[in-house]
Amino acid sequence: MSYATTLNETHDPQLTSWVNSANEENCDFPIQNLPFAIFRRAGSNEAFRGGVAIGDQVLDLAAAKNSGYFSGIAQTALVQCDAPELNAFMAMGQTAWSALRLALSQALRSGADAESKLAGCLIAQDDVEYQLPCRIGDYTDFYTSIYHATSVGKLFRPDNPLLPNYKWVPIGYHGRSSSIEVSGSDFKRPKGQIKAPDASEPVLSACKRLDYEMEVGIYIGEGNQLGDIIDIDQADKHVFGFCLFNDWSARDIQGWEYQPLGPFLAKNFASTVSPWIVTNEALAPFRCAWQRDAAEPQPLGYLESEQNRQNGAFDIQLEVQLETAQMREAGQPASHLSLSSFRHSYWTVAQMVAHHTINGCNLQPGDMFGSGTQSGPTHEEAGSMLELSIGGKQKIELDNGETRTFLEDGDTVIMRGWCQKEGAKRIGFGEVVATILAAD
Amino acid sequence: MSYATTLNETHDPQLTSWVNSANEENCDFPIQNLPFAIFRRAGSNEAFRGGVAIGDQVLDLAAAKNSGYFSGIAQTALVQCDAPELNAFMAMGQTAWSALRLALSQALRSGADAESKLAGCLIAQDDVEYQLPCRIGDYTDFYTSIYHATSVGKLFRPDNPLLPNYKWVPIGYHGRSSSIEVSGSDFKRPKGQIKAPDASEPVLSACKRLDYEMEVGIYIGEGNQLGDIIDIDQADKHVFGFCLFNDWSARDIQGWEYQPLGPFLAKNFASTVSPWIVTNEALAPFRCAWQRDAAEPQPLGYLESEQNRQNGAFDIQLEVQLETAQMREAGQPASHLSLSSFRHSYWTVAQMVAHHTINGCNLQPGDMFGSGTQSGPTHEEAGSMLELSIGGKQKIELDNGETRTFLEDGDTVIMRGWCQKEGAKRIGFGEVVATILAAD
Repeated sequence: MSYATTLNETHDPQLTSWVNSANEENCDFPIQNLPFAIFRRAGSNEAFRGGVAIGDQVLDLAAAKNSGYFSGIAQTALVQCDAPELNAFMAMGQTAWSALRLALSQALRSGADAESKLAGCLIAQDDVEYQLPCRIGDYTDFYTSIYHATSVGKLFRPDNPLLPNYKWVPIGYHGRSSSIEVSGSDFKRPKGQIKAPDASEPVLSACKRLDYEMEVGIYIGEGNQLGDIIDIDQADKHVFGFCLFNDWSARDIQGWEYQPLGPFLAKNFASTVSPWIVTNEALAPFRCAWQRDAAEPQPLGYLESEQNRQNGAFDIQLEVQLETAQMREAGQPASHLSLSSFRHSYWTVAQMVAHHTINGCNLQPGDMFGSGTQSGPTHEEAGSMLELSIGGKQKIELDNGETRTFLEDGDTVIMRGWCQKEGAKRIGFGEVVATILAAD
Repeated sequence: MSYATTLNETHDPQLTSWVNSANEENCDFPIQNLPFAIFRRAGSNEAFRGGVAIGDQVLDLAAAKNSGYFSGIAQTALVQCDAPELNAFMAMGQTAWSALRLALSQALRSGADAESKLAGCLIAQDDVEYQLPCRIGDYTDFYTSIYHATSVGKLFRPDNPLLPNYKWVPIGYHGRSSSIEVSGSDFKRPKGQIKAPDASEPVLSACKRLDYEMEVGIYIGEGNQLGDIIDIDQADKHVFGFCLFNDWSARDIQGWEYQPLGPFLAKNFASTVSPWIVTNEALAPFRCAWQRDAAEPQPLGYLESEQNRQNGAFDIQLEVQLETAQMREAGQPASHLSLSSFRHSYWTVAQMVAHHTINGCNLQPGDMFGSGTQSGPTHEEAGSMLELSIGGKQKIELDNGETRTFLEDGDTVIMRGWCQKEGAKRIGFGEVVATILAAD
């Protein structure tokens, strides 16, 4: 059993906090969660620094470091969190992550003697702004939903939807780091080469098939040296935590450009992450078994382990809502589009780590994996509009009577995520939000 | 005419230096070159800092900064070069790059009064070690040789070698930054999933078809904001310089994994750059016309410009040699494998920049593009063993009687590059070298 799968006192569902908002029903950030972000007071010129969410507050880790309350490894970890990026803290490894989590859990609990020292370190989430939680050196996007791969494959390659390697290889490719931004960063509809099916030549055009992709983001903590392989059963030591990830996609640009070397401009104009990183340790109660039907190809040895079969999967609920400009003006609520779970993933996070390093590729603190679009087995669980609209052929009905096949200018996409089950405290991921601006 | 295409006094072929080795015939680093690297004395614990090559010496830019000789923009630029990575200098833009180049050219010329102040700032290249010249945030690999794309296409897709998008889209994909290392960094043969053509299932194996790729690396200097497009005629302002780039490839892993999202583990185990960045400005004399036959598709507007047609291409000679363990033991010279030129590229650097940003993707100082394997029109100009051995079917004869189809353990691949023509001083890129170690 690794630290990341073992329940400890920080997971106790009975724990409450002296920060009262953390104890409210359906709060994303109860004391069992304790996710990390980089923040400062909104509109200020303060230095960005690390923070931990508790209820509707941010615990300022720079202030906590100076509070005199913490000591030992936890205090050493806080020193690393007083920085505009969490890379150094992420590089410290799980002993430090766990020590800080335990210390914060104990300090924020109801009745803790820390309240007098730490109350002044809280800032309302409503009053802060975020930036990326770390410097993302390399970003790799996987393709782990077989339901997504099959649906999309049907659209791009009707005669050959699921390629023969899919059930053997955790397919992934390198994405663009520079254009990953934090929730709230709106962006312009991209332009690119598009070739209509009946046209003889491509044209330069604003994208007409702009889509979201509902993904889980996975942050690497401790890295590995070039040439060193990470064993599947050691993968958890290298996984710092998880976020929500919207990997915006220009389907028409993608269709024309993607062969033979994969998607490029169809993806690298923008990707958006939620500000909070929910730690691997916080998700321990929501791990579940990973199964591969006996009739399917079984994983090669480096992707196989008993531990991975027992609890390699994560039951993270993912939801997408769409708020159109018309809804916003009319004060109408956003319309539901998708709901699925990361537990449907064909490959686990540990398998992604083991696969990524089997050739000796080095992962570094702050690197990010995208899970790939997390579509589930039913149509309602599709994690993109490409799938929901069946390649743009079927209109998606919104609650206010509008319809969409792909995203229009002014549309705001809202992704939320949470984990919930009997016997555990519900924890949330917050949200990732961005709005499509018109092309120049 | 942009600064990068205008000849100025720094290009004068008559210039000589008081560093005598710079004046020798066939010297890679005459005073007309002045390339940048990050270095320190070999085996020391000195701080890595910027250096400029002159003859067989490195001008220590940290020492030059402190010499009291330089002033104005050049001195400001030197301050940025006194750092373990050149990103801040690269971000300063072409006014600063040109000012420093001119000041260094004047200071290092025969008869300059700087000799007494700067002679002490020189360190023999034989006595230094290098690291990457900058932090490479994102690395994009293009695919700009139509000869390479056609030859490789034939091997991977016999019925469909050159895809319909090739002549319209400067095809590129994102590569791995973390595993790019500087010349001299040996690496282990990668392992990965391989499926033999007649096998029903893949196996995990050490790569059996390990290859080099002879590429030009292009470093971005000044970046662009997310959402901003770089016009093709402004591209030169964003291109800091060029290096030699060996993008090692595991052909058997590639064949099995690359569909539908492109190469991944087949490439990201190692890439190797030469230590020296030859600046865009230094290459001005070696620009040449870029042509697209009238019978071929003409570029879309954003990829088209008169300036690009006039001098968008670069005549950079690229050569690969192979030194086997047996040659090394016997003291035999390395054996010639490939010789070609970057002028054969189907797309220019300016077209790569314009294409990469047409969707608003942001480039950042220190980002690198690979040109893609630079194979020329004839078989002898093929830039990879995959092509030279026709997919492994034909043995490559080496000078000492050995043969190869792909690389073996102990093989050292040496790439060199240079520019040479009537009326200009020959300038060189130095070399990029690495040796294949056995898999674990």
